[in-house]
Amino acid sequence: MEGVDHLAHERKTAQFDVEAMKVVWAGSKHELDLSDRMARLVASDPVFRKDNRTMLDRKELFKNTLKKAAHAWKRMHELRLTEEEAGKMRFFIDEPAYVDLHWGMFVPAIKGQGTEEQQKKWLPLAYKMQIIGCYAQTELGHGSNVQGLETTATFDPNTDEFIIHSPTLTSSKWWPGGLGKVSTHAVVYARLITDGKDYGIHGFIVQLRSLDDHSPLPGITVGDIGDKFGSGAYNSMDNGVLRFDHVRIPRDQLLMRLSQVTREGKYVQSDVPRQLLYGTMVFVRQTIVADASRALSRASCIATRYSAVRRQFGAQDGGPETAVLDYKTQQNRLFPLIASAYAFRFVGEWLKSLYTDVTQRLQANDFSTLAEAHACTAGLKSLTTSVTADGIEECRKLCGGHGYLSSSGLPELFAVYIPACTYEGDNVVLLLQVARFLMKTVSQLTTGKKPVGTTAYMGNIEHLMQCRCAVKTADDWLNPYAIQEAFEARAVRMAVNCAQNVSKAPSQEEGFFSLSADLVEAAVAHCQLIVVTKFIEKVQRGNVGDGVKEQLQVLCNIYALNLLHKHLGDFLVTGTITPKQGALVSEQLRSLYSKLRPNAVALVDAFNYTDHYLGSVLGRYDGNVYPALYEQAWKDPLNESDVPDGYAEYLRPVLKQKVRLARL
Amino acid sequence: MEGVDHLAHERKTAQFDVEAMKVVWAGSKHELDLSDRMARLVASDPVFRKDNRTMLDRKELFKNTLKKAAHAWKRMHELRLTEEEAGKMRFFIDEPAYVDLHWGMFVPAIKGQGTEEQQKKWLPLAYKMQIIGCYAQTELGHGSNVQGLETTATFDPNTDEFIIHSPTLTSSKWWPGGLGKVSTHAVVYARLITDGKDYGIHGFIVQLRSLDDHSPLPGITVGDIGDKFGSGAYNSMDNGVLRFDHVRIPRDQLLMRLSQVTREGKYVQSDVPRQLLYGTMVFVRQTIVADASRALSRASCIATRYSAVRRQFGAQDGGPETAVLDYKTQQNRLFPLIASAYAFRFVGEWLKSLYTDVTQRLQANDFSTLAEAHACTAGLKSLTTSVTADGIEECRKLCGGHGYLSSSGLPELFAVYIPACTYEGDNVVLLLQVARFLMKTVSQLTTGKKPVGTTAYMGNIEHLMQCRCAVKTADDWLNPYAIQEAFEARAVRMAVNCAQNVSKAPSQEEGFFSLSADLVEAAVAHCQLIVVTKFIEKVQRGNVGDGVKEQLQVLCNIYALNLLHKHLGDFLVTGTITPKQGALVSEQLRSLYSKLRPNAVALVDAFNYTDHYLGSVLGRYDGNVYPALYEQAWKDPLNESDVPDGYAEYLRPVLKQKVRLARL
Repeated sequence: MEGVDHLAHERKTAQFDVEAMKVVWAGSKHELDLSDRMARLVASDPVFRKDNRTMLDRKELFKNTLKKAAHAWKRMHELRLTEEEAGKMRFFIDEPAYVDLHWGMFVPAIKGQGTEEQQKKWLPLAYKMQIIGCYAQTELGHGSNVQGLETTATFDPNTDEFIIHSPTLTSSKWWPGGLGKVSTHAVVYARLITDGKDYGIHGFIVQLRSLDDHSPLPGITVGDIGDKFGSGAYNSMDNGVLRFDHVRIPRDQLLMRLSQVTREGKYVQSDVPRQLLYGTMVFVRQTIVADASRALSRASCIATRYSAVRRQFGAQDGGPETAVLDYKTQQNRLFPLIASAYAFRFVGEWLKSLYTDVTQRLQANDFSTLAEAHACTAGLKSLTTSVTADGIEECRKLCGGHGYLSSSGLPELFAVYIPACTYEGDNVVLLLQVARFLMKTVSQLTTGKKPVGTTAYMGNIEHLMQCRCAVKTADDWLNPYAIQEAFEARAVRMAVNCAQNVSKAPSQEEGFFSLSADLVEAAVAHCQLIVVTKFIEKVQRGNVGDGVKEQLQVLCNIYALNLLHKHLGDFLVTGTITPKQGALVSEQLRSLYSKLRPNAVALVDAFNYTDHYLGSVLGRYDGNVYPALYEQAWKDPLNESDVPDGYAEYLRPVLKQKVRLARL
Repeated sequence: MEGVDHLAHERKTAQFDVEAMKVVWAGSKHELDLSDRMARLVASDPVFRKDNRTMLDRKELFKNTLKKAAHAWKRMHELRLTEEEAGKMRFFIDEPAYVDLHWGMFVPAIKGQGTEEQQKKWLPLAYKMQIIGCYAQTELGHGSNVQGLETTATFDPNTDEFIIHSPTLTSSKWWPGGLGKVSTHAVVYARLITDGKDYGIHGFIVQLRSLDDHSPLPGITVGDIGDKFGSGAYNSMDNGVLRFDHVRIPRDQLLMRLSQVTREGKYVQSDVPRQLLYGTMVFVRQTIVADASRALSRASCIATRYSAVRRQFGAQDGGPETAVLDYKTQQNRLFPLIASAYAFRFVGEWLKSLYTDVTQRLQANDFSTLAEAHACTAGLKSLTTSVTADGIEECRKLCGGHGYLSSSGLPELFAVYIPACTYEGDNVVLLLQVARFLMKTVSQLTTGKKPVGTTAYMGNIEHLMQCRCAVKTADDWLNPYAIQEAFEARAVRMAVNCAQNVSKAPSQEEGFFSLSADLVEAAVAHCQLIVVTKFIEKVQRGNVGDGVKEQLQVLCNIYALNLLHKHLGDFLVTGTITPKQGALVSEQLRSLYSKLRPNAVALVDAFNYTDHYLGSVLGRYDGNVYPALYEQAWKDPLNESDVPDGYAEYLRPVLKQKVRLARL
């Protein structure tokens, strides 16, 4: 029955103003309206359909992506979209494409590392897409360790050119999105060598393809690196491989804001502070945290709605079976993910303000908070992407067998999301960076240096090392002060414990190396504390609509207490809480899940996602899942004929005993 | 350089006899030889190549699978393979196909539920593949809860037929493998209705397609349910949808071993004990545990070899970077997975003997151990498949960015494996069944009924409720008795704790419902104990080759202590160990990882997997990874031309400013 809302009964039980929550989630009324408008624009345009994605072969899929990008470009102009609107539109098109790298990496690299003159020359071309660029950093044999890159850029004073070269197979550029088939230009990272000396990694603008016929220029070998995880996912992107055979570029295509090479081949550093580059890193990671909250909210929206539709067991007297959303084991897995989506949303919002703060300080040559901001964003990038990747797969499992169908949207969401755990810093490598910063902070506590920002709590070390948690009843765990103190005490105690163990090693480096698994755990504890803190602050600040604050309170408590339960070992082994208090956490969680239950569907409605964006037959707004699943099935190419291709050659001979010499 | 072993240095450091370990892993010399022979046979046959799988579209992939199945059938006859050999051959072909269901479900269903007469009629046809069958149980709206199935089989005494019918959309059969495009017949589960009374779910043999031209018979709507997770994976299987519109079948196609309907329409139960069906369940789940150890060993083999090849950071004086396998954070994630693969192999081996024991008892009408065996296999199926699914994805992450490429083999391994968490019992539903059995066992302890089999330790409840762990140094954690006791005490205390909380609820059912999250944790604790116990027993039994026992000891300790660390909260909250003892676990683990390190590559070599079976450029035996990655990339269809399809329509107009009305 078209038009019937099969989830109306769920929506009726909500105890808060969903429209007000939508504003909270979006960040502002302006953001909500903007997203809403752009989401609908994309959803209503047949060129942007997504439901056939997993049925296309690689070439069809890729061609379709080129088509979408061109169509979007056209629409952006026709509708005279602002930069903000165009960005949102690209976001809702929801398919990895070369434009992501052009706008997200190529243009910012020139802006950040190019001189004014270089910007004047290259940016107008890029803005009009007269050239399309990508960001060629990683190599076949080199990922996280940028200093290990092998590509060389050797200055030739005779011709005033750099010679870009790939000296080994492992120096082949490998992975850059947009490189394989589309980009005409790239910012290429290579070792700058002049006068026989290696000055380390620098960025160069290199043209890769002819602007006449798109063929690769002489000396350039370029192609796609092949099929990736999932049947759609990142296969719409031409992640590329690139080799240089002594390719010459003019000297002025070295990005020269930070350092230059003179006509004579002399290497000169400018007086622009290197720390500016960290600002970019803070910016990029902040967007990754925002993406995490979107991906996790999307997955939990699908799982929540379908869990309200799907029924299993518990039928009495021939009545309907129980909605799986009523099962405690389902709530226990799903509700913390909804809570995490909200938590990541708010910590992402805060990170955005942190970026603004950092930028302002950088402009004033104040680098005092930079290390802390860098550690904080590294840690939050790691934490939120890891939880989101696992959370999407958990949501898929929560949908039972049907979650395994591509039409559920969850396989593609997982496949397209998981690279976030690896790109822009491998998650474990990032946690080790956080741990290093924590160790440094701990060691400086005795010197009287005050810890700043998200490490400020460590200044309270004396209290935190010996405080005792005052929780006596399950309801005491609703006290944000008790939660905050427990997370702070656990984090500081783990950090101090690590510092003590590291100091026992023959050297700091050896200690750090051998204890790295413990250090990672301490870093996670610190990052979880940040998210909990920002969620508590968010709840305390806002009171924006009927019942909204109460719901945020429940979500915040679920987020924190579920973590506490999951990491109970940390809290107990550091003596932060007692076993009895740990048991009260479970009790309180049960009660919180019951409070959330009537609001579950409304809380995911508040994400305001269109069915187009969700891209899931299970997550449909109207809950009318089964007819949609059934209809979608028949669209599979295998169903084009009743009798499958290959019947005559490979099935009939078997059935008709034409495959002889039998013994079985 | 072809033929060079890039991992030779790793193999030289092994401290044990790899050939002897291969026998331990395989189970016997006979098993090793058989697997080795069949693996090589498949690997050397070009029809069975797998490396192009992810590049085929759905129809090509499916047709290719039909071809492989027919070719295998031909080879089995030509080579006069035994049933055992043929099974191994199918296994090493390593691609989900209709034959899995024909041999694994259709034939066994007739064997198990058919009368002798029915077997005589149908089995010869099935054995010769004159008919091909599948197992049609689950429906669009009904998965785990078999009792909720809606398809009806109504007896018509006028014609002596059953009328098979799908009364609703949600009653459509949905998911059965081999159903969509291949099967000519199915065992269909439907509600048996005769004389107006519903006798519940029974199995019926139903012909679906014409044996002349393969077209669906009148009243039958059948097709494929569409694209699934991954680009190859289960898309080689025609999981199907099936609807019946009053399809008539002869009365004697009800599978009648357990119950019959007479000519007059009278429902009669036979005197064959229903418990026999549980025997089949024990068998099927035992094979799933064996599959888990194979999938996890495969993933960890790939990750281990590539971690020995891949280098990152830590270069000094221009020397090579450090192999990532040397990083403690890598060891800390990877080595417990190698240990788990071994653990699951041995618990699987033990389950096989349990199945033999159960079968013998059933034949002697001894049902005393059946409930325990059922709970045990349910729990182990859940535990091993969950850990394996997560473990494969963890191995993929451990391979960094390159793990995301299909050529790494890990995306497909994940996608093809994860249904194991859902089929044959959803993993959480199964754990709740285990918990129910544990609660019953606890409640019977006071009645003097002795717990049997894997619950026997509960008989020791008085000691286990109050014992104190004697560990004082990190090395004390090498004592198997200390480990075993800690796992037993934790399991029994969690179970008793749950039982007490359940008993406080208004009713047993309400208590069970509201505490189900805790019950699941208690069930996991019990299942982990079983695996730990069987591993310890295995180590203590065997001494089969130089250094083998020592390696198994290290693996066993890593398996147990890593679990202990991961679930530290359980052990502390139950007072099983102290925080101090918990910290000693971490210390001992660090030392165990160092012991395992020089043996890591040899321990995964002992799985004896061919490069064909592994299907991963990263997991190559010779470690010559980078040239293989590079070559594989160029085979992608996108690389057929330098300039991509769609350039003229969708890229050139953008670059040449033919998309006008610009403002951006």
